[in-house]
Amino acid sequence: MNSNINALIASHKPGHGLPQAFYNDAEVFQTDLQEIFYKEWLFAIPACELEKAGSYVTQSIGAYKVIIVRGSDNVIRAFHNSCRHRGSVICTAKKGNNPKLVCPYHQWTYELDGRLLWARDMGADFDASKHGLKTVHCRELAGLVYICVAEEAPDFDTFAKTALPYLELHDLSNAKVAYESSIIENGNWKLVWENNRECYHCAGNHPSLCRTYPEDPSVTGVGGAEPSPLVQNHVARLEAAGIPSQFTIDAGGQFRLARMPLLGAAVSYTMDGKAAVSRPLGRVHIPDAGPLVQFHYPSTWNHFLPDHAIVFRITPISPTETEVTTKWLVHKDAVEGVDYDLNRLSEVWIHTNDEDREVVENNQMGINSPVYEPGPYSETQESGVLQFVQWYLATLQRNRGPQSLAAE
Amino acid sequence: MNSNINALIASHKPGHGLPQAFYNDAEVFQTDLQEIFYKEWLFAIPACELEKAGSYVTQSIGAYKVIIVRGSDNVIRAFHNSCRHRGSVICTAKKGNNPKLVCPYHQWTYELDGRLLWARDMGADFDASKHGLKTVHCRELAGLVYICVAEEAPDFDTFAKTALPYLELHDLSNAKVAYESSIIENGNWKLVWENNRECYHCAGNHPSLCRTYPEDPSVTGVGGAEPSPLVQNHVARLEAAGIPSQFTIDAGGQFRLARMPLLGAAVSYTMDGKAAVSRPLGRVHIPDAGPLVQFHYPSTWNHFLPDHAIVFRITPISPTETEVTTKWLVHKDAVEGVDYDLNRLSEVWIHTNDEDREVVENNQMGINSPVYEPGPYSETQESGVLQFVQWYLATLQRNRGPQSLAAE
Amino acid sequence: MNSNINALIASHKPGHGLPQAFYNDAEVFQTDLQEIFYKEWLFAIPACELEKAGSYVTQSIGAYKVIIVRGSDNVIRAFHNSCRHRGSVICTAKKGNNPKLVCPYHQWTYELDGRLLWARDMGADFDASKHGLKTVHCRELAGLVYICVAEEAPDFDTFAKTALPYLELHDLSNAKVAYESSIIENGNWKLVWENNRECYHCAGNHPSLCRTYPEDPSVTGVGGAEPSPLVQNHVARLEAAGIPSQFTIDAGGQFRLARMPLLGAAVSYTMDGKAAVSRPLGRVHIPDAGPLVQFHYPSTWNHFLPDHAIVFRITPISPTETEVTTKWLVHKDAVEGVDYDLNRLSEVWIHTNDEDREVVENNQMGINSPVYEPGPYSETQESGVLQFVQWYLATLQRNRGPQSLAAE
Repeated sequence: MNSNINALIASHKPGHGLPQAFYNDAEVFQTDLQEIFYKEWLFAIPACELEKAGSYVTQSIGAYKVIIVRGSDNVIRAFHNSCRHRGSVICTAKKGNNPKLVCPYHQWTYELDGRLLWARDMGADFDASKHGLKTVHCRELAGLVYICVAEEAPDFDTFAKTALPYLELHDLSNAKVAYESSIIENGNWKLVWENNRECYHCAGNHPSLCRTYPEDPSVTGVGGAEPSPLVQNHVARLEAAGIPSQFTIDAGGQFRLARMPLLGAAVSYTMDGKAAVSRPLGRVHIPDAGPLVQFHYPSTWNHFLPDHAIVFRITPISPTETEVTTKWLVHKDAVEGVDYDLNRLSEVWIHTNDEDREVVENNQMGINSPVYEPGPYSETQESGVLQFVQWYLATLQRNRGPQSLAAE
Repeated sequence: MNSNINALIASHKPGHGLPQAFYNDAEVFQTDLQEIFYKEWLFAIPACELEKAGSYVTQSIGAYKVIIVRGSDNVIRAFHNSCRHRGSVICTAKKGNNPKLVCPYHQWTYELDGRLLWARDMGADFDASKHGLKTVHCRELAGLVYICVAEEAPDFDTFAKTALPYLELHDLSNAKVAYESSIIENGNWKLVWENNRECYHCAGNHPSLCRTYPEDPSVTGVGGAEPSPLVQNHVARLEAAGIPSQFTIDAGGQFRLARMPLLGAAVSYTMDGKAAVSRPLGRVHIPDAGPLVQFHYPSTWNHFLPDHAIVFRITPISPTETEVTTKWLVHKDAVEGVDYDLNRLSEVWIHTNDEDREVVENNQMGINSPVYEPGPYSETQESGVLQFVQWYLATLQRNRGPQSLAAE
Repeated sequence: MNSNINALIASHKPGHGLPQAFYNDAEVFQTDLQEIFYKEWLFAIPACELEKAGSYVTQSIGAYKVIIVRGSDNVIRAFHNSCRHRGSVICTAKKGNNPKLVCPYHQWTYELDGRLLWARDMGADFDASKHGLKTVHCRELAGLVYICVAEEAPDFDTFAKTALPYLELHDLSNAKVAYESSIIENGNWKLVWENNRECYHCAGNHPSLCRTYPEDPSVTGVGGAEPSPLVQNHVARLEAAGIPSQFTIDAGGQFRLARMPLLGAAVSYTMDGKAAVSRPLGRVHIPDAGPLVQFHYPSTWNHFLPDHAIVFRITPISPTETEVTTKWLVHKDAVEGVDYDLNRLSEVWIHTNDEDREVVENNQMGINSPVYEPGPYSETQESGVLQFVQWYLATLQRNRGPQSLAAE
């Protein structure tokens, strides 16, 4: 397969979609897991989901199962969800709170920091200190928790340093999850990203979103079009007010941050463009500051607004299935029914996600045809897709490392 | 696998069923798609289903997705259902009517003849004439539409020339679909055919059909038994009346046409043997002319009666799943409830299909056993099965061409 | 794969769980079927299920389908459930009664002893005597039916001779099935066994069973702990009364028989420990004799009590799916509602099975993680698991025979 992957990469025609196998082949999917999802930092949860010591959530990344848990010292850690005895998963629920991590099979008992505390009848020679839970790399950044299941994690600091000034104003540690949804899109994870990275499809598919979100690529693009005066003025006004807003993109293309204006007088993603939450989340004191848009490949994109925030997490399930989890964050003291209406808060992106699911699924079905031939991207409209594809191919090649070289 | 296929073919014992792998192996199934279904002409729909310009249906053949659409010039054409931009399927419904073919993703817009008419923001260098829909071979024969997804289609004219005189009397262009059913049989497509090509199983399984359909192999067979005087007289009477009826079989065995008598006074496939439709379909003016039976491997068998017609289309889904679609055609001006009763028209073959599904599924289950050993076909009763198996093996070998030779 | 299996076996660390591939790899699963389930004797049914001549049940073992039928001569025989004509399954129901075995496809008709009696229109050269049903090895032992689908079956007599004295007192030929359940556990069949072979998990998972069943490994173990005086006294008392009870294990470890005391005054697996059935099954006339526990790898474990018996059959379905069928046997003349209450009889093991399903499924999920590393078994608590794992590895190597040697 190494040589196949190299041949596949070589067969990609610049400016065009990826060859079919990248979207539906089982071995390419395994390579994507191995080289991308098992090696890169992934967004896991907003830190506020773990309210107190012992609060945990469980997640899957391909074949890995992970527990993310807040310790007695308030530190958030991540562990592999597999007992060191006979391998059983330890936490079987999606989320919960436990004073210790106790395996349900034979009650081996671990501290919240992963140390094995108790194991019955294991004999005199048994060394508990060698049977603690295996750790997963875990970093908290301004209220967002990222994890990495690789043995050695790549650099996280560059991203952290760049993003922190943008994010800290949004005070996400004082948020709560007002609503969450999780859907399966029957499409390859890269099609989910390609869909996300352009608004060429918006006018034809997203009636709710288009009430507030500008489909103009000179507003939302990544350099395929010069930023419009509108955007330049918007950013200048915010930066002058002490709100970091300048478009910034990682040298390697893995993440991007920028603040952009919404349409007309809109201040939030609602049907009428008015705020969804009366109590602000964070300290972005200019109501029409628009969203801080962030993406971090391969797992997340986010919209941080003055009144709420929306975080998305994508998880590949199979070559043609991807889970998209969306969480709507509001201030932890905002009261449902008083400060916000749940339907009003969530409806635009519930619709938008479902509309995107439909186009992604149609895209996948057509790509599966033996006659599929990658077509040209629009430079004007699809510069973001091009940027994603370039990041993907470069990362695949870099992470495969010697394998890749050996096969050439 | 090439050598495996050759070894498998070589292991077939003449006069006996096929070795197990032909019925349940994933690679043989892929070879069947590649060498048979992706290379041969396949029956798609009765032309009357596309009533007017812009009417379309969509179909799958293995991994291929096809649009069959009637143009403004009334010509029926077929296209691959995949946009030349990012590959999305264009028509997502099973059938419908559109003035243009518009991709739902980014609204690339194609004429009904496949030419790309409009694509937004693709830049000055973009050549729309090179981005028309990819065509699928398509032929209309006496109201029946056949397609072929191969780059170069094999000969269709021999079949067309042979079948036309038989078919044209049935005036299928003036038909309408009164009813259609689609079922999945959990059996290999070749088991569906083997079941279809003999009536050895009829007495034990088809109480409704056996009211009108003769199970006698000297009536329905393909040469394993001499035609009976009954059949000879029947055919002679019809031919004398200008109704082509003589048994005729393709040199290569791919198709057969013949007119055969029903039992006793029966004139149609009904529970009482009387006509199902009071308004005739076509110009076969002798009521007890019986069915014109036609098969065309690998996709269709048909019964054309003086009062209605039934067309079957089989589509392989997996090594052990086959879709069988049945359509009952009546004169376009026949009125339901006046000229025909829907239940009366369809019940015999609805029952028969379901009974066949059950025996095919039992057949598949037993063949899956490691001890399955192909048994002998009855020369008297199963000459049609033998003929199908011979056609299949010969076609597989011919279509594999040089691969086949290279491995020997 | 041969070399892979050898490498896998070599990578097993004594005293520890098996490497991951043994629990979830498709090729290992195929090897398990091929070398274990297709070669060893397997428990099929209690003989009492086949009440009279013509009574049959059907079963699947991997890809094999088997009919077990009682003949006119009262002998129980087993056949492959595949017609010698075109391979159809002959008996399509789970159980039933037929005077002959008639293929539903073309009515080929077999005697209950497998001989082909009638096949229509097969011509003068057809030799019916060469087309009888293919036989499956079948042995009845004290009312328990064992089968083997191998061409040549391994020794059964050693087991029969050892087990007969223990079993015959239970008079299983005069039993009836009072209740049966069949569940699918989403775990590898070996995890089902590992779970069965220890009671380390009982206290934490089986509240109903622990009312009567001793979790003490010195009572239930296989030599990891010396039998306690309690057990020695129990056995001595029973043996003195003519009830064979001594712990006995096969030299190769495939089967074990022993009688063990229940907790306190308990005499049966009920919530209150009292008898479940007022009419005894068999001639174990000491009410607190406790269960005769038997296992026979790879297909069955059993508990024979003075008042009833419980037989378990495990069937691997996929690498991570196993069917567990449980049957509760009572005296054939015991009357439901009078001599026993069905709920009271079955509830403890219905609960226990479901609790075991849950821990097995959690075990499988955690083992699937790429970081799973086989942990140490407790010598005190898990000697039975160790014994199973040793039997499995030894049997796999022995049955693979020359393959195994060739690859070394």
